[in-house]
Amino acid sequence: MIHLYTYTTPNGRKPAILLEELGLPYTLHKVDLGKGEQFSPEFVALNPNSKIPAIKDEDTGVTVFESGAILIYLAEKTEKLLPTDAASRAQVMAWLMFQMAGVGPMFGQLGHFRRSAPEPIEYAINRYEQEALRLVKVLNRQLQERDFIAGEYSIADIATYPWVAAYEYVGLSLDPFPHVQAWLERVGQRPAVQTGMAILTPEFKSDLAQ
Amino acid sequence: MIHLYTYTTPNGRKPAILLEELGLPYTLHKVDLGKGEQFSPEFVALNPNSKIPAIKDEDTGVTVFESGAILIYLAEKTEKLLPTDAASRAQVMAWLMFQMAGVGPMFGQLGHFRRSAPEPIEYAINRYEQEALRLVKVLNRQLQERDFIAGEYSIADIATYPWVAAYEYVGLSLDPFPHVQAWLERVGQRPAVQTGMAILTPEFKSDLAQ
Ligand SMILES: N[C@@H](CCC(=O)N[C@@H](CS)C(=O)NCC(=O)O)C(=O)O
Ligand SMILES: N[C@@H](CCC(=O)N[C@@H](CS)C(=O)NCC(=O)O)C(=O)O
Repeated sequence: MIHLYTYTTPNGRKPAILLEELGLPYTLHKVDLGKGEQFSPEFVALNPNSKIPAIKDEDTGVTVFESGAILIYLAEKTEKLLPTDAASRAQVMAWLMFQMAGVGPMFGQLGHFRRSAPEPIEYAINRYEQEALRLVKVLNRQLQERDFIAGEYSIADIATYPWVAAYEYVGLSLDPFPHVQAWLERVGQRPAVQTGMAILTPEFKSDLAQ
Repeated sequence: MIHLYTYTTPNGRKPAILLEELGLPYTLHKVDLGKGEQFSPEFVALNPNSKIPAIKDEDTGVTVFESGAILIYLAEKTEKLLPTDAASRAQVMAWLMFQMAGVGPMFGQLGHFRRSAPEPIEYAINRYEQEALRLVKVLNRQLQERDFIAGEYSIADIATYPWVAAYEYVGLSLDPFPHVQAWLERVGQRPAVQTGMAILTPEFKSDLAQ
């Protein structure tokens, strides 16, 4: 049994999607960021960085934080969605890092300056919009000749989907990126993705979670 | 033989440090960011995201981009500096991601708004200074009871060192963080770290690189 500590954000949904894909039973624990529950001593013991998501694997006693590390842990535990041959594996890891170090932080900064900053700062909005669009363009080129980011469906898609799916929230248009649009639809049709995206909402229905 | 395409930046130094630690022979290729060489067709074929570092492993034909993915690839190739038991491995991966998704992007934004932005924007400088200090504080707590970030010396230290070592460049003081200071000194004394940090400078001296 996996315990998943999470919330309704892009990073928080990634491990739920993967658990659904893998068919692993899990218990969902809501960490309410609005109430500051990520700073509680119980949660800091799981993630010293006070951010969701985190997991505890009851079978092994292992705890993991950082969504990218959680995806790798669960994929290695089940030997699924992360290839073992060096060439394909390196591609999945590279695109997972592209999401973790690029898409996530840059969409995050754009969302902040567009929606949360106390006053509009044009320079910062432009900076992060340009960088987010550049990243989506790189993805679009990658998806021109592939159905999934690293070839086969993998944890690289699972990491990237919840962020790119939030394009409207951060104020981006995907009109110039047809291959990204087609990929969003392709990935979004997967039942595991739909269930994982709905965690902690009234629409959430899972055979695995309790 | 590994071909390393890189430049004199924190991300660019990480793979050089690891190659030195592992004793793997490598050829150093300078990608001059000042001249925009990261946008050349040859380099884009290695990294569609047009950023250094990238590697090509001549033994296997594998190419890898994103510094974090390169570190994982080389550590798995040699079975060194990334544990195989699930619990220790998950810790190394979590702290590697903490660097890739946290320390790197946030120090990077702070450096931008402090040193490169055309005009000083107080809100942005404060935002990234606060977040960078928060991350260093998390590291300091982690290093209070450990010599290295994830216990044993690992790719998590190698990923984090070049960024934290640039604290003066981004205008941070480490005075409140004695455990981070001691760790910087401990890691900085390693010959492989000293060699890797000096790539592409006149001081560079390696028995492995050509
Ligand atoms: N790199 C981390 C980022 C995690 C993250 O930013 N989590 C956000 C929600 S998406 C959070 O917990 N924010 C609360 C806070 O910063 O206090 C990961 O991928 O797990
Ligand atoms: N997440 C990437 C970041 C790489 C990165 O930001 N590289 C910078 C130098 S440190 C670069 O190539 N900048 C040139 C550019 O953006 O055009 C990694 O860790 O490899």
